[in-house]
Parts: sequence; C-alpha cells; structure tokens
Amino acid sequence: MATIGILGGGQLARMLAIAGAPLGQRFLVVDSATDACASQVAPLLTADWRDFDALADFARRIDVATFDFENVPAETAQWLTEHTRVFPNPRALALAQDRLAEKNLFREIGLATPAFAAIDSREDLARAIESVGLPAVLKTRRLGYDGKGQAVLRSQTDADVAWALLGSAPLILEAFVPFTREVSVIAVRSQTGEFRPYPLTQNWHSGGILATSLAPAPHADALAEHAFAHARALAERLDYVGTFALELFDRDGELLGNEIAPRVHNSGHWTIEGAVCSQFENHVRAVVGLPLGDTSLRNPSVMLNWIGELPDANAILGEPDGHWHDYGKEPRAGRKVGHATVCARTNAELSERLARIARTLGREAQIDPVRAALAL
Amino acid sequence: MATIGILGGGQLARMLAIAGAPLGQRFLVVDSATDACASQVAPLLTADWRDFDALADFARRIDVATFDFENVPAETAQWLTEHTRVFPNPRALALAQDRLAEKNLFREIGLATPAFAAIDSREDLARAIESVGLPAVLKTRRLGYDGKGQAVLRSQTDADVAWALLGSAPLILEAFVPFTREVSVIAVRSQTGEFRPYPLTQNWHSGGILATSLAPAPHADALAEHAFAHARALAERLDYVGTFALELFDRDGELLGNEIAPRVHNSGHWTIEGAVCSQFENHVRAVVGLPLGDTSLRNPSVMLNWIGELPDANAILGEPDGHWHDYGKEPRAGRKVGHATVCARTNAELSERLARIARTLGREAQIDPVRAALAL
Repeated sequence: MATIGILGGGQLARMLAIAGAPLGQRFLVVDSATDACASQVAPLLTADWRDFDALADFARRIDVATFDFENVPAETAQWLTEHTRVFPNPRALALAQDRLAEKNLFREIGLATPAFAAIDSREDLARAIESVGLPAVLKTRRLGYDGKGQAVLRSQTDADVAWALLGSAPLILEAFVPFTREVSVIAVRSQTGEFRPYPLTQNWHSGGILATSLAPAPHADALAEHAFAHARALAERLDYVGTFALELFDRDGELLGNEIAPRVHNSGHWTIEGAVCSQFENHVRAVVGLPLGDTSLRNPSVMLNWIGELPDANAILGEPDGHWHDYGKEPRAGRKVGHATVCARTNAELSERLARIARTLGREAQIDPVRAALAL
Repeated sequence: MATIGILGGGQLARMLAIAGAPLGQRFLVVDSATDACASQVAPLLTADWRDFDALADFARRIDVATFDFENVPAETAQWLTEHTRVFPNPRALALAQDRLAEKNLFREIGLATPAFAAIDSREDLARAIESVGLPAVLKTRRLGYDGKGQAVLRSQTDADVAWALLGSAPLILEAFVPFTREVSVIAVRSQTGEFRPYPLTQNWHSGGILATSLAPAPHADALAEHAFAHARALAERLDYVGTFALELFDRDGELLGNEIAPRVHNSGHWTIEGAVCSQFENHVRAVVGLPLGDTSLRNPSVMLNWIGELPDANAILGEPDGHWHDYGKEPRAGRKVGHATVCARTNAELSERLARIARTLGREAQIDPVRAALAL
C-alpha cells in the first residue's frame, strides 16, 4: 500500500482515486481550490503549487507523486523530484507544455505533423504565413488546452487581430489540416518499460472541447498499428511512466501528430467500462509498480462529454450498459462536469441505444456523427 | 445528487461509496471505530449506534439512510425511519436478525427449509433433538454471522456442551443438511417494485466464512428460475428496496432456504467486474430512486475471499481480467481484509487462470473445488 499524491484535484484526480482505492492505495490531493471535486473521495491539501512549505508537507506524506493536469509549473515538478518519486517525469510534462518542442519531437521519431513555424515577433508571423499558408492556427506555445490560447487565421487581417490578442507570448503557427478524422492513442507504460496501448479511439470536438469518443475507431486496424508504434517511440524517448494520450489527425490514412497529454485523458474515459482495466487503474498500477492491467476492449463504447451542465441522468441509466459519471462540480459554462459511457455487444446495438439517447436528450448534434461512423 | 448515510463503515460501505461516487452521490458513514475502512473514501461520523444525539446530527446531514451491517439495533433503525428515509425498511432488518422468523417466512412463501425448532430451554433442546434428528446445528436466533454463535451437535453429549455455551440466548436447532451445493441469489428491488436478480452464484465456505464464489452457478438454469421466484416473493413480502442476498442449499435439485442478508453481500462481490452493473451501484441506484442497472453477466467470474491477511497481489494482477480489492484494513485472524475477482471469456480459460493462481499462492484448497465445478 502506498500513498499517491496528485497535483490537481479535478475529475481526473477523482477518477484516479476511485480506481486506486480497490488496489489498497491511499491518495492525497493538492489543489488551491477548497472545493476541488477530488476532495469528495480523497483527502485534500489546499495549497498553491508554488507554496514550497506546503509542498514539503505534501512530499513527506506521500510515497509517489503524479498529476491530473499538465500545466504544473516546471519548477514545482522539478522540486518534487528532489523530494519524492514523481511519475511521469518532469521532462514529459515540460515537453507537453511546449507545442514547439512537442512538434519537433514528433518529427524526430518519424511522426509527420502539420506544417508549423515558431513565432517570436510580428515579422516571424508574416514570414510564417507565407511558408505555412492559410488557413492556419496561431497558438500559444505554452499553457493551452481545450482550444484556449488559440486563433484561426484565414487572412492577413485575422493575423493582426490574433497578434494583438496572443502576441505577448511565444507562439507557434500551425497549418490548418483538412483531416478525415481525429483519433487518439491512450497507452500506459510501466517502470520496467512495458508498453500497452488501448484500442484506437476516434474523437469529435465541439468548440475546441472533446464532445464524443468512440472505441474502437472503425476501420483502423492498419492505422492503429502505426499510431501505437509512434506512441511507443514517444514513451520510450521520454522514459514515460503511467498513462498518456497521443492525439493524431487521420488525413486519408496518413497520421499527423497533434499533441501529447502526459496524463490520463478525456478520450480514454470509456476505458472505465469498455476495457478490461481502465486508464485510471493502469496509471495507478504503473506509478506504484504493480503489473499493468489488460488494455483489451470489453465491448464497443461511446463516451459523451457533458460540458457546462449535466443532462437528465435517467436517459443514460435507463439504457442497458449505460454508465454515468457526475464529477460533483458546480455547473458553469464551458466546464467539464461529467460524462456518460454507453457500451453494447455490437455496433448496431450501440447505435440503437445512442439513437434513443439523442432523441430523449435532444443531443443529435453531439451523437449523430458517431452513429454515422458506426454505420460505415 | 443526494447524500447517502450508511450505518456501518466496513468494506461494504466502502464499496458502496466507491460505486456511488460516479453517480454524483455523496456519502456519510457512521461507525464507532475511528479507523473504519470506509472512511478512506467517504466522510466518517464516529458515534455509537445508540447515541441518538449523534444520530440526529447524522439524519440532518443525509437524504437517505442505508446499512452495511444487518445487526443494527432495531430501535436505532426504527428511530431513523422517524427522522429520515431508510432503505431497506427496518422490517427486513428485523427479519434477518431473527433466524426463527426468517425460517417461518421462507415456509410461508413456499420455500422449503431444513427441519428446525425454536429452543428456549434445555427441555426444548432435548425434544428438538428428537424431532429434528442428529446431526443438527444449534444457533443463536439473533446476531449470528460468518459461523459465529453456532455449534454442530452430533450426539446428546455435544448438546450439553453447546447448551452451556449458547443457552443464555434464544436459540434455533436446525437439521444438518447433506446438500449438493450452496448457492445464493443476489437481487435488487427498486422503490417502484422492479425486481432484477443477478445470475445464480455458487458458494464454498471454510470455517463458516465464505471462501469462494462462482458465477454463473454451472448447470443451474431451472434451479435459478425457482431461486429467483423465491427471492422475488420475499422481497415483495418485505417491500424490500435495495440489494439483498438469499442463501440457499441445493439438495439434489431441491432448494432449501438458509438465510437472507438485507444488504449487499459477499457472494455478490464478483458483480463489480463480472456483471454490467454491480450490486453496489444497483443498491445506490435503488435507494436514491434512479433506474436499476443491468444485472446481466459480462463474463464467467470467480471471487476469492482473503481472510486474515492478503496474499501477493501480483498473482492476481498479473492475470488478464484479474481484479484486486484491498479493503484497507489491518490484518487480523478471521477478518475479511480483501478479495479478488478473476473473469474470463470461457470456463476453460477461467479454470486455467485459477490453476496458475492456486499454484502461485499455494491456495489449492480454496480454488480446486471451483475448478472441479467448472469442469463438470
């Protein structure tokens, strides 16, 4: 039995604690919010991540530290490694915090990326628009997630507006990729270097936030093998320990690297019911050094994200193999407050269940695309 | 979202809280032990169950009360119903606390029982030995569980010893049944009267404590239908809400009622991974009025109880679909400290996994009987 410290007390920490409790693991969550939702299932230490006195107390009370959020300050992660064991290592966090370093690493391991250029001045931006082309996406290199800190450029005029908005930070301009679909690899790597990917997941976003995931991604056997090889290469380069996600664009069968998330990931929530051992349990197993669990699919699964507020739970709980996840958070526009997972033995059965749910909840926009993918 | 109060903070409360958290339910556990293991995952109110001031505080802080232990004092359960909603109702608790009332109800609904007689004096015992025959089991009518408060009588001499030991309490003498196997129905009933049984479970005991469960019980289709009908009749007679267990003896295809447990039950722990919706989640759904979950089998499953101390977790976690449950309790002789569940797609695959586990842990005595049943 170990006590696992988690920096960040959101829904990822909450689901880690729920998954780790049966393994006899204890948890201590550190978050600056006194109502962090993980505190409903695990003890909370309220502290700022730069409060090194509080972190010293935290480090004394735990056996190993991990993260529910990648944007932990680099000096905090580094300080922790000097006072306790930390998985994943701060190098992986630092990489995921820097879109430029991330893209460069993708290319180093042979994973193609959209055209991109580093932007440190208005002149850089003008030159990059020439080389990358339009439309393109201007993004802050650091601290971006869920579509925050980015702007789509369709003209030189857009470039002025975007520069005014984002120009004070180091930026990257990425070509806008007309992709067929977005997929992600959720995988786990152990302290001894064992690597296990989950079946490839297909994702749909809305307003830059994940809306829906489907596993396994249909017609993706060859694609999945390539995606797994890239994920394994990245994990090995970073000496990564724990669960992580690699987000990819599928452009007519060619994979392009989008980003890496050095933590359990929203597009892997379906693994709680849809896989033999969930991404959360596998992260816990990895960081405490237990054998990795089976990442095989149990049943085709669809995850529906609830953003802002929860719909009526009965529409999900009334379906066979319908599962509900309320994170215990206050409703707020744009906030991830819960998700549902629906499983079935066949794609046809899954599609039927989704059709009923879409109708009952008036969620056709969120659900119809996944039904179309299931019907292909 | 509701706050569910649980009387008793052992592993059942712990697993209820873990199952209920994703549904957005909060919990408050009341237990006299400050280290009650459920307190690792839910807030704990330390109080004696007869401390009515503390119970008043408890009742104010919750929306509905339930139990992790059936031997709650009747006046406590009754008091609670006057101050909050309580599921299951105290009538079901009272019945399960009295082996005589329980057996009489079994007969009323047409469920056969072993021969039995109420014993209130040494003379009653002598007469009952004549009518029931030997061997027989002398049991306290109240507060017995896991083989506690009982003695096997094989001769009139045993009767003297047992009387000296147990004679101060109201007793029942039950014929010793040479049964083929022990089975249990785990079922859930909603506030609207909907009834859902899990697949019939076969159980093996050691020293009066459950050692191993197998679901589904092999070759039991006809038997299961009878067992479900009895369970449903009992639940309806008691207006039962929540999960419960009915333990039965299978005597060459004839079912005999052994006892009812008005709570989630050790022989239903396999449902966490082996069924679509676990007995714990279904109990939570029932007491807060959510739709009942699917009680269908996912895969054949075997539950191994860990009594006294935990074996090496790696033997379980190294198997595909092997699941570990450490209750976070201090090791102590005779104490339930954890369990494991092993699932597989086929009985043959399940048996292979069990064979490896038995060998690695030296647990052949616990595991070989279930492998024999799987091979039939």
